[in-house]
Amino acid sequence: MQRRWAGTVALVCVLLMAWVSPSIAAADREKLLSSPGVYGTFAAFSLDDDWGKMEPASRIVQLKGLKGVVEQHREKVAIDVYLLRGLSDRADLMFRVHAAELRDAQKFLVDLQNSPFGKNLKMTGILNGLTKKANYVPGFSDEMKAGLKVKSDPGPKPYAIVIPIRKNAEWWALDQDKRMAMMKEHTEASMSYQKTVKRKLYHSTGLDDLDFITYFETSNLEDFHSLILAMEGVKEFQYTRRFGHPLLIGTVTSVEELSEVLAQ
Amino acid sequence: MQRRWAGTVALVCVLLMAWVSPSIAAADREKLLSSPGVYGTFAAFSLDDDWGKMEPASRIVQLKGLKGVVEQHREKVAIDVYLLRGLSDRADLMFRVHAAELRDAQKFLVDLQNSPFGKNLKMTGILNGLTKKANYVPGFSDEMKAGLKVKSDPGPKPYAIVIPIRKNAEWWALDQDKRMAMMKEHTEASMSYQKTVKRKLYHSTGLDDLDFITYFETSNLEDFHSLILAMEGVKEFQYTRRFGHPLLIGTVTSVEELSEVLAQ
Amino acid sequence: MQRRWAGTVALVCVLLMAWVSPSIAAADREKLLSSPGVYGTFAAFSLDDDWGKMEPASRIVQLKGLKGVVEQHREKVAIDVYLLRGLSDRADLMFRVHAAELRDAQKFLVDLQNSPFGKNLKMTGILNGLTKKANYVPGFSDEMKAGLKVKSDPGPKPYAIVIPIRKNAEWWALDQDKRMAMMKEHTEASMSYQKTVKRKLYHSTGLDDLDFITYFETSNLEDFHSLILAMEGVKEFQYTRRFGHPLLIGTVTSVEELSEVLAQ
Amino acid sequence: MQRRWAGTVALVCVLLMAWVSPSIAAADREKLLSSPGVYGTFAAFSLDDDWGKMEPASRIVQLKGLKGVVEQHREKVAIDVYLLRGLSDRADLMFRVHAAELRDAQKFLVDLQNSPFGKNLKMTGILNGLTKKANYVPGFSDEMKAGLKVKSDPGPKPYAIVIPIRKNAEWWALDQDKRMAMMKEHTEASMSYQKTVKRKLYHSTGLDDLDFITYFETSNLEDFHSLILAMEGVKEFQYTRRFGHPLLIGTVTSVEELSEVLAQ
Amino acid sequence: MQRRWAGTVALVCVLLMAWVSPSIAAADREKLLSSPGVYGTFAAFSLDDDWGKMEPASRIVQLKGLKGVVEQHREKVAIDVYLLRGLSDRADLMFRVHAAELRDAQKFLVDLQNSPFGKNLKMTGILNGLTKKANYVPGFSDEMKAGLKVKSDPGPKPYAIVIPIRKNAEWWALDQDKRMAMMKEHTEASMSYQKTVKRKLYHSTGLDDLDFITYFETSNLEDFHSLILAMEGVKEFQYTRRFGHPLLIGTVTSVEELSEVLAQ
Repeated sequence: MQRRWAGTVALVCVLLMAWVSPSIAAADREKLLSSPGVYGTFAAFSLDDDWGKMEPASRIVQLKGLKGVVEQHREKVAIDVYLLRGLSDRADLMFRVHAAELRDAQKFLVDLQNSPFGKNLKMTGILNGLTKKANYVPGFSDEMKAGLKVKSDPGPKPYAIVIPIRKNAEWWALDQDKRMAMMKEHTEASMSYQKTVKRKLYHSTGLDDLDFITYFETSNLEDFHSLILAMEGVKEFQYTRRFGHPLLIGTVTSVEELSEVLAQ
Repeated sequence: MQRRWAGTVALVCVLLMAWVSPSIAAADREKLLSSPGVYGTFAAFSLDDDWGKMEPASRIVQLKGLKGVVEQHREKVAIDVYLLRGLSDRADLMFRVHAAELRDAQKFLVDLQNSPFGKNLKMTGILNGLTKKANYVPGFSDEMKAGLKVKSDPGPKPYAIVIPIRKNAEWWALDQDKRMAMMKEHTEASMSYQKTVKRKLYHSTGLDDLDFITYFETSNLEDFHSLILAMEGVKEFQYTRRFGHPLLIGTVTSVEELSEVLAQ
Repeated sequence: MQRRWAGTVALVCVLLMAWVSPSIAAADREKLLSSPGVYGTFAAFSLDDDWGKMEPASRIVQLKGLKGVVEQHREKVAIDVYLLRGLSDRADLMFRVHAAELRDAQKFLVDLQNSPFGKNLKMTGILNGLTKKANYVPGFSDEMKAGLKVKSDPGPKPYAIVIPIRKNAEWWALDQDKRMAMMKEHTEASMSYQKTVKRKLYHSTGLDDLDFITYFETSNLEDFHSLILAMEGVKEFQYTRRFGHPLLIGTVTSVEELSEVLAQ
Repeated sequence: MQRRWAGTVALVCVLLMAWVSPSIAAADREKLLSSPGVYGTFAAFSLDDDWGKMEPASRIVQLKGLKGVVEQHREKVAIDVYLLRGLSDRADLMFRVHAAELRDAQKFLVDLQNSPFGKNLKMTGILNGLTKKANYVPGFSDEMKAGLKVKSDPGPKPYAIVIPIRKNAEWWALDQDKRMAMMKEHTEASMSYQKTVKRKLYHSTGLDDLDFITYFETSNLEDFHSLILAMEGVKEFQYTRRFGHPLLIGTVTSVEELSEVLAQ
Repeated sequence: MQRRWAGTVALVCVLLMAWVSPSIAAADREKLLSSPGVYGTFAAFSLDDDWGKMEPASRIVQLKGLKGVVEQHREKVAIDVYLLRGLSDRADLMFRVHAAELRDAQKFLVDLQNSPFGKNLKMTGILNGLTKKANYVPGFSDEMKAGLKVKSDPGPKPYAIVIPIRKNAEWWALDQDKRMAMMKEHTEASMSYQKTVKRKLYHSTGLDDLDFITYFETSNLEDFHSLILAMEGVKEFQYTRRFGHPLLIGTVTSVEELSEVLAQ
């Protein structure tokens, strides 16, 4: 029982220290998250059996180390954290890393896996992608362009979904006009969900066994479900040979919140 | 031998305590199980090797903890338990969780996996879905609508079967009329099994690598077999690209009965 | 060396006891093996690493327990045992269980896995099926019907082969006449192997990710090979989308013989 | 250091003993390797983690046992050994077993897995086949028949390749004439490699999830590569739905040489 | 803390020793890397759980052994090393081995796996290929030939990507003219990336479950992404049935740098 208390006290200390520690000069997170030419790496992990059987106090020490590794790399990469446990069967947690150079994402992930906490992680999947200027938007009508600029509603969007996509050979063999026409239909079908579902697109061809990583955040999963249904009803969907497999679904979290969940 | 007795006594105590414990204010189970807009999560687990080699007394303590975790979340989620061991090769047990918010299901499953019993569980599969108002029924004849209102025979339905379904791109590209016509044929073919097989449908598009989770309960597996055969004979089935894989089959149980089986 | 002797003596004792123990009232095995409406479950297991590294004496004690579990369930279910090790890469041993209610097969398999021997088993596959009255035979000619009544040659048939089958959607969409015509061709092609290959058919639709489990016993594997070649040459085979995967091949054995092999 | 010496001395002794031990009456190896109606089993294994961490002296004792098991079964089966480690990712070693009865191959493999060395082996794949008289050769021209009788060049052929093949349903539905014509083209395309690549064919339909096991030995892998390229260019190849998956490639070895490699 | 220092000192010593050790007569690396008729083996490994939990000092000793194994085989094979951890989910590290005889690559990999460091490696994939004279280039225009001779920009190319490719049966059934026309289109589409992406091609038919291994080095992953997009847009791509799966991406490293990363 005392040991349990000790664990709780240690956790509180760790969190307090995290709170008061002077913030290290961080990468220009906003720029990494909005610019083209930025690499996005999604790394999903599950915890090994040893983790579950470890003493709470040891776990807290290791989670403190996780916090340290994240802080240390903040200068170069933008890191987001997700809790997948309880919603996905592929992984317990996921990091999304934005970096100007893919090597910087690699360095963070290598340091993470080399850290004491990382020794209890089993890599279950990595997806690499690249942000680019919009391919088809320049050809859209002004009305559509305006619609695409509508921002999603403010407020927390607790759910995050990652859907890897691979198009088939026929898609890439189509000429640009035909693809443009289909992407217009695709985009129109999605526009009524602009406010409740936030989207981000990564290009993966050559960087992974995919063509695209589509990333979503929402507070309204029923709306998100309707959006994906709408996407499956347009012609462009027939040129898709992989959609998900795996789709990853989880909740947006922070290192601190994740530490609280995992310390138990 | 004495240790065995000790275990049995401990088990009896646990079950007695469960019996007499004042029931915690439970989620409106009936409402969660019958309303649209409710999330259904199916989480299948297998027991790890350590579990089998643990002392009966330790197992009983851990199973008591399982009971506690379930009680604790009853306020927000409706939880059903199934024994898959001996009928399915994918998992030993399965939880079905209904929640108004998917996060509440996640919280239960995270707490379950963080509990001492949960440390011996290996997640083998999660399926997420959403209940919705019937898509096609409003277009059916009054006779069919009446038929669909016929309730299944009362009495225990010990077997539960879960069949994940994914439709192909052609299905979603069909116009609503054609899908309606096929769904009428589909529904007519199923109606003679209304009394012996209870059905429930979840929509999964965007929440998982599926389009539907179909859930069945029955006491008559031969009838259920005939129902699925009938479903495979209608035109709509040709637009299915995943049916099962895995189909999960097990028996409906309770935390108490499950504890008895696993304590051995 | 002495330990080895001890093991051998213990094994002899176990086998002697098995021999002299009064036979428990057994399920009507003949009826279960020949009636329609009976459930057949094929459960394949591999032995874990601990088993191989266990002392012979401990193994013998555990194998004695296996014998006990089988005896205990004989009243309700008919159990056959197969050695797959050395012929299949999916499993070391397999049980075939016939039961009037699928729950009874489940109870046996749960007790088996809960037994000390069972703690060393890893479930590698379960197939569930149901025996039914012949679908197409009533439409066959009298000559064919007579031919199908020819019994297989007496004498031991040491080899057993299990082939799971799934038909494609086109098959189930065909009208009964067309399927009947193809099943006639199928049956005619198989009739010359009636004497050397014993066959049994289970229907699995809805009970598993299959449509049929086909089970064979033979002493002449070359004849069996020719039979399957003949089956692949008829038109009905083109409506098969899964044939085997895995095909399971092993030798028919008894709990006693299996114990001798595994005690080493 | 002394332990290392001890190991080396022990190994030398083992090899000397193998050398001088009176040869047990062996199965008629030549007959098993050249007759139709003989079963061929390919069993691939990887070594478990414990093996690598075992003392050299213990390894040598276990490898001596391997030698014993092989000797013991020589009377009934012909056994060949291959080193796959370093060339294949599926297995470390492979046995090819020829037997007049498949049960005899099973007995050897069961004894192998029951032996102390075998406890460190993990079965990674078994392929079963049957040698038969040539199906199509009787219909070939005299010139082709003569060409097929040309023996491969003498001298060691250190590389062995195993390619499992499954034909599609269309192939088996073709009439014999059409298949004969395609097999002529297939055979002609292969004849210029008769001297540098030794081939052997096993029929697997019904004995495994395959139709054929093709086995090759060569000292010239570039020639072998050209042979397979030629095979992929003929019409018959279009009726193949599985070719390899896995293709197994390794070097021909002996129990003695294998022991030397694994003792390190 | 002292232990940590000890580890660092040991590492420095190891690296110094590596630096000053007289270089062993190395295989003609340039010739192996540029000639036709050379075998290329790509071997990917992940580190086991024990590695992460080992003392730094023990790790350093083992990594020193890795250096030794590489040195020892340099006479016969050319060895390149890659760090995949943090970018690929299939492996932590990869070796590319060029050898005049495939057996020599096997010998290196067997010695590697037999070394103390190797005991902590789990083989996750091997790809075997063969360099050959260009098939189609002789038929290209002089302009294209000249373009293909343009060397890639000097300077480090930190990223390496391996994409296994399998063509479908239709491709191999096409006559040489049609394939030549398509390969011209393929090559033209790739030529603008000649300077920023270095390419190398290996032929795998018969040596592995592939037809080609394509290997790339670049410092500009966005250019590489555009190159692969261009490759997917030409007609020849429609005859590809496997492209990647897995694509392997990592950074070019040396045994010394790898040792530094893994020693942590």
